[in-house]
Amino acid sequence: MAAPLGAERALLCCLFLGGLCTLASAATRYHKWEISYQFTSQDCVRKLAVTINGKTPGPTIRAVRGDTIVVAVNNTLMTENVAIHWHGIRQIGTPWADGTEGVTQCPILPGDTFTYKFVVDRPGTYMYHAHYGMQRSAGLNGMIVVEVPPGQPEPFGAYERDHTVLLNDWWHKSTYEQAAGLASVPIVWVGEPQSLLINGRGRFVNCSSEASCNVAHPDCSPAVFPVVPGKTYRFRIASVTSLSALNFEIEGHEMTVVEADGHYVKPFVVKNLNIYSGETYSVLITANQDPNRNYWLASNVVSRPPGTPTGTAVLSYYGGRSSPRARPPTSPPAGPAWNDTAYRFRQSVDTVAHPAHVVAPPARSDRSILLLNTQNMIDGKIKWALNNVSFTLPHTPYLVAMKRGLLGAYDERPPPETYDHAGYDIFNVQKNPNTTTSNGLYRLQFSSVVDVVLQNSNMLRANSSETHPWHLHGHDFWVLGYGFGRFDPAVHPATYNLKNPIMKNTVAVHPFGWTALRFRADNPGVWAFHCHIEAHFFMGMGVVFEEGVERVGELPPEIMGCGKTRGGH
Amino acid sequence: MAAPLGAERALLCCLFLGGLCTLASAATRYHKWEISYQFTSQDCVRKLAVTINGKTPGPTIRAVRGDTIVVAVNNTLMTENVAIHWHGIRQIGTPWADGTEGVTQCPILPGDTFTYKFVVDRPGTYMYHAHYGMQRSAGLNGMIVVEVPPGQPEPFGAYERDHTVLLNDWWHKSTYEQAAGLASVPIVWVGEPQSLLINGRGRFVNCSSEASCNVAHPDCSPAVFPVVPGKTYRFRIASVTSLSALNFEIEGHEMTVVEADGHYVKPFVVKNLNIYSGETYSVLITANQDPNRNYWLASNVVSRPPGTPTGTAVLSYYGGRSSPRARPPTSPPAGPAWNDTAYRFRQSVDTVAHPAHVVAPPARSDRSILLLNTQNMIDGKIKWALNNVSFTLPHTPYLVAMKRGLLGAYDERPPPETYDHAGYDIFNVQKNPNTTTSNGLYRLQFSSVVDVVLQNSNMLRANSSETHPWHLHGHDFWVLGYGFGRFDPAVHPATYNLKNPIMKNTVAVHPFGWTALRFRADNPGVWAFHCHIEAHFFMGMGVVFEEGVERVGELPPEIMGCGKTRGGH
Repeated sequence: MAAPLGAERALLCCLFLGGLCTLASAATRYHKWEISYQFTSQDCVRKLAVTINGKTPGPTIRAVRGDTIVVAVNNTLMTENVAIHWHGIRQIGTPWADGTEGVTQCPILPGDTFTYKFVVDRPGTYMYHAHYGMQRSAGLNGMIVVEVPPGQPEPFGAYERDHTVLLNDWWHKSTYEQAAGLASVPIVWVGEPQSLLINGRGRFVNCSSEASCNVAHPDCSPAVFPVVPGKTYRFRIASVTSLSALNFEIEGHEMTVVEADGHYVKPFVVKNLNIYSGETYSVLITANQDPNRNYWLASNVVSRPPGTPTGTAVLSYYGGRSSPRARPPTSPPAGPAWNDTAYRFRQSVDTVAHPAHVVAPPARSDRSILLLNTQNMIDGKIKWALNNVSFTLPHTPYLVAMKRGLLGAYDERPPPETYDHAGYDIFNVQKNPNTTTSNGLYRLQFSSVVDVVLQNSNMLRANSSETHPWHLHGHDFWVLGYGFGRFDPAVHPATYNLKNPIMKNTVAVHPFGWTALRFRADNPGVWAFHCHIEAHFFMGMGVVFEEGVERVGELPPEIMGCGKTRGGH
Repeated sequence: MAAPLGAERALLCCLFLGGLCTLASAATRYHKWEISYQFTSQDCVRKLAVTINGKTPGPTIRAVRGDTIVVAVNNTLMTENVAIHWHGIRQIGTPWADGTEGVTQCPILPGDTFTYKFVVDRPGTYMYHAHYGMQRSAGLNGMIVVEVPPGQPEPFGAYERDHTVLLNDWWHKSTYEQAAGLASVPIVWVGEPQSLLINGRGRFVNCSSEASCNVAHPDCSPAVFPVVPGKTYRFRIASVTSLSALNFEIEGHEMTVVEADGHYVKPFVVKNLNIYSGETYSVLITANQDPNRNYWLASNVVSRPPGTPTGTAVLSYYGGRSSPRARPPTSPPAGPAWNDTAYRFRQSVDTVAHPAHVVAPPARSDRSILLLNTQNMIDGKIKWALNNVSFTLPHTPYLVAMKRGLLGAYDERPPPETYDHAGYDIFNVQKNPNTTTSNGLYRLQFSSVVDVVLQNSNMLRANSSETHPWHLHGHDFWVLGYGFGRFDPAVHPATYNLKNPIMKNTVAVHPFGWTALRFRADNPGVWAFHCHIEAHFFMGMGVVFEEGVERVGELPPEIMGCGKTRGGH
């Protein structure tokens, strides 16, 4: 049950053009995964985790642009299904491989093996994680690294090697308990995470208070990132947090941001990097500090009042006088003030496309969908809603229901296209927080250009608005603009950055702010678009887009078996 | 989401026989169940339970012989499937409604509703519980009471009313943790239960040691059984324990045993009743004690060294001077010595058919299957095995695979019919404990008479042999005999009780003992036969019988959707 089964490099195409043979080759990379429960001690406290080949995080998938990835996922859990999403991979031509339970597939039952097969068509840093219930938080997550083909330059200098950094937050309570609490009246909120993890490793600070805590457990030995003095390294950073917005810092080392969500960024230098759940970045650092000591990698919660200690790992200089795993002599960086929204806003705005890699956005859109993000109530339960509709997943995947024309699988009435943007007071608790649920979706004209504006607002608690990282499946979008306060469709579109917007798949909506994005609906399939905070999506903070479902190829029968596709219907 | 939706009484048949009209009527009783996670405090300690309509145990199903029961089970769990078994109901003509995941159906997925429909054709006391993973222990259990039609006598005096008593054991660790521990190397054993429950209520003795313990929680308020002085009551008792063999006593009140597993017993009087997981009994008691005080109902662990306090409830006399919920002034009965196997053996032997209700067994069998019960090892994991084969469930239900001739769904090689009964030393740790797994099954000739002898033995630990309650689906069997030591097929069959054996669906195999039973393979379908200890079945202690699968009617498509029946195959 080892991770990669090896790669078969195959001749993809050989084109004779004016006597020139362009030889491109692509590999098929096979992985065999076994999903199982394991007792692990990620932050030194023993807990039941859901693992891939016995580990959390799972193995990093490495590939070269154009490769085909095949992952045979065998579910050996006892009674629990799974589904794995390949976050940032657009699944062009393979919408059934997106791994989104209820949207693109039925879940994988205990005992079953489901084989995901898809092409990674763009170099960059991505991630994978469960997309079913709250299993991502239970341990099913990892990274995907897609390299440029050998010899192909990237728009920044060479680097010695890359390091992958997967950031997470971690609770001692099970995800079943967390979800049951969210659905309770009154709500039972799990609270802030006990620990922050870097590459799956953290350290619970009150270890002596927990009988099952063992500081010597190898699972919680801090991750070590070796560097050779004078060399430059690429750190590929991803966040799979359930809740936390994070700030990442490498003590004493400036970071040059060069990639975001698989797109080259106009390089800019930061002391520390704000990263929201579902985002990836590449930064370059040069090992130019005193090699006779080690340095901290630090992850700190921002955007929520601090309740969790800094997550740490170690940057270790080769050849210095410090032992590789030695604790740095300083205190770990504490990060910026948790509520310095302006600081984080600025970094968002600073993230624009690399001049040589601008993908020009269409000058205008065919349709604008304005989504007001609110916290709401249904029968005493707290929910999140868009335009006063709280999203629920159907139990027959949309992709199957729509492609096959199954009736009654979802609500055919589309959710509202807009809200009272002139009248709604985003700075106060809403007057009537009651909402309804729906699994209706937005049907987009194929190849049309769609703008979405995400408007944040005050929560049910006064003077509170959170950061919501919205993630779009199946596409990258242009990030056209961010603003504070009320979005005005008569004013703000004129301020959009159409010159060099970065393309991303996940973007932050800042407290009391708005974010505008544009995408082309040119990927046949059905695609979720949702807040990447695990609890928020669970509580209804998402929508679904369909485009060109009639163009989707024949669906693999393996994605069926649930809801209206049960028993061969 | 209330429990019973009411009953429709329908005219079943009206036969004119010599001018006489025999009017029989049968009802259809509808139930609507929602399966959900809830935080409950069954023993005052807060825990996430799997519940039916918000409660554990679930509602008692009450019906009259001949009624049809319809239970629409809606799974609202997040990522976890379910399946519900109707324990003791033979499912004649409806083998797909037996609720045994992997044997008779695919599990019910989150969001799905599966409707069980079956006839209760024999009066008696039964139970229902999940038959998937270890969900029974997580809270999915309850009782079924099938009454005789009004006016029809039973072979014992009238009683004022009945009380239902559901016995269970309870752990604070989740079933996921328990199962992961069982599958670990080395095994992580959850240990003895924290509490014993009567009708879902217990009291954890070290409440002050648990932050989430609240002795005032209504969930753990003891069950109260009211009686009127001088009246006689029928107590219908069932055990759904995961592990524990129990001894049940009603302080100061002799019990007359009148029913076992839906069959009338030649009445015998006991001070206390041994009851094994999966068994049901009816006892009569007369409220003939001092009415000015209350009395304990007590449940104590037997057959394993005591590690759990007595489970208690209250027998409350109406009209006396004691308040209904008052704690009895005495200590609860402590039960017999836990290791008095002879005492329990005797009670087993004393349980024979009521003289007026003997169902004569066939004088001889067509086939004898001898099953040696052993504890074994596979790759460092502890297993249980029969004739050195540890059972695993397939992921395509046998019923579908066999009826439809799906190839490769299970191992077609049948497991061994016997073992070295002359040479195997049951009193010692076995010399070579290694075993193999299989999901092969025994195919029985339709309508043939089959004997099964269950031979107990020493476990992997020296001088240890446990009690195993074996439960057969789809049938009742005659209990032909019990013995200590090595079963000798040349000697012991001559000692079988063919005169008045009780019929049961669950029977104890005592430590170092054997139990012989006989049944007629006349119920078309595929039926599990296994140790009812949740962990033991999970670890391989079971077999499966098929008979007349070609006679089974058309399978409902709703039982499919998993394994080789996924996606309409």
